[in-house]
Formats: sequence, structure tokens, C-alpha cells
Amino acid sequence: MNRREEILLAALEVFAERGYTGASIAAVAERVGLTQQGVLHYFPSKDRLLAEVLRLRDERNLDLITLPGESGRITLDTVAAIVEYNEQRRGIVQSFTVLSAESVLDGHPAAAFFRERYGGSRAWMTQVIRAELGDSLPGGVTPEQAAPLLFAVMDGLQLQWLLSPDEIDMSGLFQAFLALLRSGG
Amino acid sequence: MNRREEILLAALEVFAERGYTGASIAAVAERVGLTQQGVLHYFPSKDRLLAEVLRLRDERNLDLITLPGESGRITLDTVAAIVEYNEQRRGIVQSFTVLSAESVLDGHPAAAFFRERYGGSRAWMTQVIRAELGDSLPGGVTPEQAAPLLFAVMDGLQLQWLLSPDEIDMSGLFQAFLALLRSGG
Repeated sequence: MNRREEILLAALEVFAERGYTGASIAAVAERVGLTQQGVLHYFPSKDRLLAEVLRLRDERNLDLITLPGESGRITLDTVAAIVEYNEQRRGIVQSFTVLSAESVLDGHPAAAFFRERYGGSRAWMTQVIRAELGDSLPGGVTPEQAAPLLFAVMDGLQLQWLLSPDEIDMSGLFQAFLALLRSGG
Repeated sequence: MNRREEILLAALEVFAERGYTGASIAAVAERVGLTQQGVLHYFPSKDRLLAEVLRLRDERNLDLITLPGESGRITLDTVAAIVEYNEQRRGIVQSFTVLSAESVLDGHPAAAFFRERYGGSRAWMTQVIRAELGDSLPGGVTPEQAAPLLFAVMDGLQLQWLLSPDEIDMSGLFQAFLALLRSGG
């Protein structure tokens, strides 16, 4: 692991513990044994560090899935596998939950990242759902409606699971949602 | 409106704009034209102010619904009405989204509030779903599974709607989720 990656992983931990608002370059620097100037040499601002941490997280998901347009094909089962994997990486889920929610605050530097990310995700998820389940789901629901619902379920379950990991079977509940979507067949 | 309520509404605005971590008693005081000491006379700490703001929000929902055990009976349509009402109060939704997510941070003062609130909500929602849809929903999903999914959908849609209000029809998408739950009938 090079120094840059080391800083990013430390930043991910600090964001997970304190959120973006509560995090500081100083705290990240301390964790990797650098001065603030040392961290700022790699990442010129806290905003920039946040952007790179979010990008890192998405790249790590790409190790698990192949996005549409690539050689492989993502399915609903691939998404279920990501949810199961998320149960093993509480810190990353925690940071993502806090950072995405904070991004709705007025003028937050990550707002554009999350807006574009959700917009893009809804678009490809609509395709995935249509390919697997057709144009009309149970209750007359369309793939265009099911896609934002699926991401809402993922995000909302993460929040409940983070608060009460012993009560919330995140992976099992996500499978239950997929069972609802598939129940028309 | 008395002075206490005035402070609570100002606090709600400040939390909505900055989150709990970024908010300060000083900012709340400035908004209502008091000194910090003036605000601290009513609410001895930022934690205490947060707890009262969260309680206020739940009380306002109670104007809309009657909880089980009271004279009236809550139904899935009542919940859909709350989602529709939420589209008219962006600031409250924004503060709730940020505060609930921040509560998963280590040692956050609102963690217990949200843990208990979700636990209690899942319990009564399970009853509501069982009363309306029976023991087995489409895909073999149980009311115990549908209840956390329903709150996940509410929370997750709020996040997407706050980021992209023109793209996300929060109320229509919640109705689509209810259509999935009801599609077995």
C-alpha cells in the first residue's frame, strides 16, 4: 500500500467515526503519522479528500460487480451479494450513510457527487430490472419505479442495521424485497 | 408561539442547514435574537436541544395520525399521507435525514433515541401490515420483514428526493411500494 492509499483509508475511518463535518485533516494526519502539510501534499483540501474517499469506495464495489457496458452483466443477485458483503464492512457502510445524508445540507461539497451517482445508478438499475423481470412488476410497478425503491431499501436498511445490528438481518431483508419484486412470476 | 417553541423551531432550521455536528447554540441564539445564555436558560445543552427538536417532530406527526392503542387506527394509507405531507416540509425532512444518519457515529447523543424509535416503529408497523394484509405477503414475505422494509423505503426515498426533487416523485414511489405489498390480493 502506498502513502496515498494509506491516507485514503485513514480518512475513510475518520469520516466513519465523525462524519464529514466533524472530521479534520489533522485527525487524518495523526492516524498515518504525518503532519497536516504532509497530508495536504497529497490532497489539497478536506473536500478533495472526501471526493477521493467516495471514489475509492465505488472502485472497491467494482471489484465485486461488472457494470453494464463492460464484458460481464450485473444481476439482482449481484446486488444482493454486495448487500451481504456490506455486512462485513461496517465502517465503510457507516461512512457512506453519514456522508450521503450530510450531502443534502445546503452547499455541501459532496452534493453533486451523490446526485450524479444516484441518477446514474437508477438508470442502470432500471435496465437490470427490466432485463430480469420485464416491463411490468407485481402491482403494476414499472422498472423505472422499482430502481429508486431498490436503492432506497439498500440505504434505509443500512441505517436500521447500523443502529441495531442484532435486530436487523440486512441481507435477509434485502432478499425479502427481491422476493416482492419477483413474486409476479 | 412562546419563547421555548420559538427556540425549537430556530434549532430545527439550524440543524436542517448544518446537521447536528455543524450546529451551535450561538447560531440558534442569533436566529431568535437571544444571547447564548438566553437559549441555555431554556435548554441546558446542544444535546438537550436536539432531543427536544426530535420530540417536537414526532409530536407534529401525531397531529396527522393516531397511534395504535389510541382511539383511532393507523393504516397504510395514513402512512402514505405522511409521505405526501413530507413533500411540503423539506426542512424537517432534511434535518431528520441528517440527524438520523449522524446518530450512527460513535457515541452520538441521538443514537438511543433513533434506536428506540425505529424498534418501536417496526413493532407497530408489523401490526398495521398484518391487520391489513394478513400473515403472508407476495413472495412469502412476512409482516415482520415488510415493516423494516417500509421504513427503509421512506428513509431512502427522502434522501434521493432531497438530492433530486425534480426527478424523484417521493409520494408516487411510496405508493408503488404499497402496490408491491398489496399485489397478492
